[in-house]
Amino acid sequence: MVNIGIDLGGTNIAAGIVDRTGKIVAKASCPTLADRPAQAVAADMSALCLKLMAENGVAMSQIGSVGVGLPGVADCEAGMVPFCTNLGWHDVPLRALLQERINKPVYLENDANVAALAEASAGISRGASDSIFITLGTGVGGGVISGGRLLRGRYGKGAELGHFIYQPGGEPCSCGLNGCWERYASATALIRMAQQAVGKNEAHPIAKLAGGTARISARTVIDAAREGDPTAKDIFAQYCRHVAAGLITLCNIFDPQIVAIGGGVSGAGEFLLAPVREMVQPRVFCSRLGTPRIEKALLGNDAGIIGAAMLHPGA
Amino acid sequence: MVNIGIDLGGTNIAAGIVDRTGKIVAKASCPTLADRPAQAVAADMSALCLKLMAENGVAMSQIGSVGVGLPGVADCEAGMVPFCTNLGWHDVPLRALLQERINKPVYLENDANVAALAEASAGISRGASDSIFITLGTGVGGGVISGGRLLRGRYGKGAELGHFIYQPGGEPCSCGLNGCWERYASATALIRMAQQAVGKNEAHPIAKLAGGTARISARTVIDAAREGDPTAKDIFAQYCRHVAAGLITLCNIFDPQIVAIGGGVSGAGEFLLAPVREMVQPRVFCSRLGTPRIEKALLGNDAGIIGAAMLHPGA
Repeated sequence: MVNIGIDLGGTNIAAGIVDRTGKIVAKASCPTLADRPAQAVAADMSALCLKLMAENGVAMSQIGSVGVGLPGVADCEAGMVPFCTNLGWHDVPLRALLQERINKPVYLENDANVAALAEASAGISRGASDSIFITLGTGVGGGVISGGRLLRGRYGKGAELGHFIYQPGGEPCSCGLNGCWERYASATALIRMAQQAVGKNEAHPIAKLAGGTARISARTVIDAAREGDPTAKDIFAQYCRHVAAGLITLCNIFDPQIVAIGGGVSGAGEFLLAPVREMVQPRVFCSRLGTPRIEKALLGNDAGIIGAAMLHPGA
Repeated sequence: MVNIGIDLGGTNIAAGIVDRTGKIVAKASCPTLADRPAQAVAADMSALCLKLMAENGVAMSQIGSVGVGLPGVADCEAGMVPFCTNLGWHDVPLRALLQERINKPVYLENDANVAALAEASAGISRGASDSIFITLGTGVGGGVISGGRLLRGRYGKGAELGHFIYQPGGEPCSCGLNGCWERYASATALIRMAQQAVGKNEAHPIAKLAGGTARISARTVIDAAREGDPTAKDIFAQYCRHVAAGLITLCNIFDPQIVAIGGGVSGAGEFLLAPVREMVQPRVFCSRLGTPRIEKALLGNDAGIIGAAMLHPGA
């Protein structure tokens, strides 16, 4: 028995056939073309799966379940997507749409939760009963495995780890609050901090490395800091403090064995992880009883497919 | 079959025989006398249970389990209390000590987690798969039921809900961090805020109501605010904002159906709950999908006994 995992993104749909151990046997992708009706997107999702099965000699009888990770809120019980901004979806009956062509149990989940499940099933957090996954990208997403199970919440919007209030009255957030952690710990925040420091100074080393102030990315700030530029070093140190302070909050709430960090900024590797570890580990509540490992997530883009395939209750 | 629940406090030991529905059949208490060796305290815990059973005609064969809630960290797997400041305990093998006289399965848990379990089993949060319990007292404690299960964490120190960083660089906390939510949302914080506002002005209405500036309590601030004293009203409004902001963080992390609030400050009832509800409910992430009820905890001091009796896996 194998399972299908679908990573439904705003730009691409990626699908994979995944074995019980979390290994991808085969995968394929196609564009989402999100401005189409949801029915058309769901039809392409099904078609992609059927094509994968045909090309890899996998019969319908071998498929246990279909899981979908999506960039929004999923109501797995009802099989609905109540809300997905990136796709412009409201109350889409995704399970029913998929089951029209693939009559298997369908599980839906938020993509960050799916990635957390993937890392806990087949990634860096494998074997840990309690783990947190954080993605530091355009925003900050995350998921939590607590006592061996994915934390879902009552309304399918649990573990919105980027949206706890980190700085009361701070930077306005798209969610309507002020001072969400996302506004300080995302790649977007790192870029904003750099742009504020550099201003319109095109001669600044960060700007030169980026090829212009308008093109500053998280990567250029990190590269400039690695090369020793004092502004970039200061900014990145401050960014690491924001990441660490938020992680202390999450560790005191969840008491995990391991925190897996993914997303664009995690590309910095130990340059990010070492200072964060140093700030977090001695400061978690009652650290002598145990402190979490803090590691780079392993599965990268495959996490979406693997975790979605692991959504079935038997995983 | 009934279960025994023991609420082990710094001052008193309370024990009860609890039926399957969470109803206390009989209860009794004795002083903890915490400066004695742990062996002596554990012996009194056992003796109290045996006395309760004898007095109420409950045979040893009718007892399913013994649960203990304690004001520290519990390692339920090992049956140990690694750390309990109030009792001065380090690495106490409490399960073994109790089993010397009552040879039943023994479950250990932090007292705030126990109270959360009680409210979810037999209190205001009964029937909710996802709930949070918060106690606003000398400190801020709490517990979380997620997907029908108590959140424990890996090292038995999960759900330290008073110790997330609420104000980076803020008030120093006994846990070693700065700006923990506890420093803004506890009764102690409310008193501190009032004392700062009143200073040494013994003629201030809050001071007069308290019988002197040194005797200001959470209760006097609340009473003064109810009576319309502008300073007390301002302070309590600010306190409510701190409570609400922290709850938004917790709701975005856990996505609960209900938040139960206990502890001394919850005595304010709707005077606290109404403004907190008004601030939290419209601000939680994606509130149109569902917002948590925010209610006063029901079980008061009995929560410790009831929740401890519910710690067994069959509950």
